[in-house]
Amino acid sequence: MKDHVIAHCPESCTRVRGVLSRVGDSWSVLVILALDGMGVMRFNELKRHLGISQRMLSLTLRELERDGMVRRTVFDSVPPRVEYELTPLGTSFGAPIRGLGRWALDNLAQIDAARASFDARSET
Amino acid sequence: MKDHVIAHCPESCTRVRGVLSRVGDSWSVLVILALDGMGVMRFNELKRHLGISQRMLSLTLRELERDGMVRRTVFDSVPPRVEYELTPLGTSFGAPIRGLGRWALDNLAQIDAARASFDARSET
Repeated sequence: MKDHVIAHCPESCTRVRGVLSRVGDSWSVLVILALDGMGVMRFNELKRHLGISQRMLSLTLRELERDGMVRRTVFDSVPPRVEYELTPLGTSFGAPIRGLGRWALDNLAQIDAARASFDARSET
Repeated sequence: MKDHVIAHCPESCTRVRGVLSRVGDSWSVLVILALDGMGVMRFNELKRHLGISQRMLSLTLRELERDGMVRRTVFDSVPPRVEYELTPLGTSFGAPIRGLGRWALDNLAQIDAARASFDARSET
């Protein structure tokens, strides 16, 4: 065994899956990457940057706030200014997430090729 | 910007989300971690190890094979023996995935605490 992450499956699998479900919701990942890169962002900045709908961004930010990954600060101005940034927990999540994002970008072409080849074999 | 993974959002976001959707399906991640740790595994070994249903494991393995991450080998025996192992692409995916799994295990308690605190605030 190279690693013990899943040495005690299925007990620990269930818990790991709980966190992965947050990664699985890939909008969460993209929000974390954006805040990790930019520092502090306002709602509309995030919305424009990610090309995400208003509703989906609201839901995603609320879940990330609930998980303790994102801090939401409301400034007492007119209209109220709301800013989002990563907490220390969210920042620490940035490292493995960046690793994953980089891998994805580096290997997308290979995955696309594998899929095309698999689909061609399945059709015959 | 600390990183350029999402420097060209939303164009590259769409592509990264495609790969993350595979991560998002957390069974895929757990299958990759299992094969990464154990080398070669048979279907029923994986099934027992992960506590996954027959149907879900079949689907997951097929998708991973299609992505070029898993190699399926059928041995000409009675009954036929089928073995699964990671391809080089699947193995390379193991590294960022392990980083993520480790982070998840290390920080689950903190996330649970953040959720409890958030939910308590929301109820008042």
